[in-house]
Amino acid sequence: MSIRFPSVAFATLGVAVACQPAAESPDQQRARLEAESDSARVAIEALNARFTGFFNAGQTDSVVSLYTSTATVMPPAMPAVTGADSIRGVFATMGSMMPKGSTLALRAQSVVANGPIAVERGSWTMTIPAEAGAPTESHGKYVVMWRKVDGEWRIEEDIWNEDTPPPDTAGQ
Amino acid sequence: MSIRFPSVAFATLGVAVACQPAAESPDQQRARLEAESDSARVAIEALNARFTGFFNAGQTDSVVSLYTSTATVMPPAMPAVTGADSIRGVFATMGSMMPKGSTLALRAQSVVANGPIAVERGSWTMTIPAEAGAPTESHGKYVVMWRKVDGEWRIEEDIWNEDTPPPDTAGQ
Repeated sequence: MSIRFPSVAFATLGVAVACQPAAESPDQQRARLEAESDSARVAIEALNARFTGFFNAGQTDSVVSLYTSTATVMPPAMPAVTGADSIRGVFATMGSMMPKGSTLALRAQSVVANGPIAVERGSWTMTIPAEAGAPTESHGKYVVMWRKVDGEWRIEEDIWNEDTPPPDTAGQ
Repeated sequence: MSIRFPSVAFATLGVAVACQPAAESPDQQRARLEAESDSARVAIEALNARFTGFFNAGQTDSVVSLYTSTATVMPPAMPAVTGADSIRGVFATMGSMMPKGSTLALRAQSVVANGPIAVERGSWTMTIPAEAGAPTESHGKYVVMWRKVDGEWRIEEDIWNEDTPPPDTAGQ
């Protein structure tokens, strides 16, 4: 029986060495987060293209399909809403308030991902067609928390605001 | 030498079993994220109390000390700013625009953490003293991405907006 002891010791040593990756060093964690963030950014930029495509076509149900079922949307000048029906209502209201032919563009500026969570920070531009002459633009920024659900990134939290006071106050 | 083989097999088995946590199951990941989020929420609520204490006392440098050195702050009606000097400028501007005796309160509604990243969603209330009668309140929501730096949670991204249109437009 005594020959068992060294093998147990060896097994323990083996476990200690092989499990090292489970306790990441700060450098290893940084490298992993960078790789995960780069990969998430590619996926999120593709989803943003789908989002603006749907939004600009007035396809509200398709916009809503990019959110999780428990998502919270936090528009400026309106209370926060949670859940698909309320989110659909927000986008329907926004669609009805926007001049016809307005187009939204999104630009991701930073994506930080760790496992099933990603945080995107970016800027948005809304281009509003003019009756005559050049279109006008409004600009702002946003933060979106994405969550991976069944292998797909979906929006869990979405907040944005404008870079300038609303035209009603700025123009007076 | 042949008695070594069983010990190697035993060591391999030991590694396979002991390293299981490195490849988390979805349930294990959910449980870990919940535990980390609960723990982060306690720390973040304590930091929010410090934040509002500093903010309401006009201690701008102390407010800025709660942000990382590369943080981005995204106030409504102003462009996004990055870095301590610019963030100090934003809070100095806000302080000069707020009526004397105004107080900010923050309420965390959700904290999602994974390792060194935490996302807080919450609501804010600004109470503005009236010349006579009851004070007025404005309300809004915010999302903050926190990052653990040298063991301390610090704000890396901060965005907020209001629940109602600004008084200049709403009151006319």
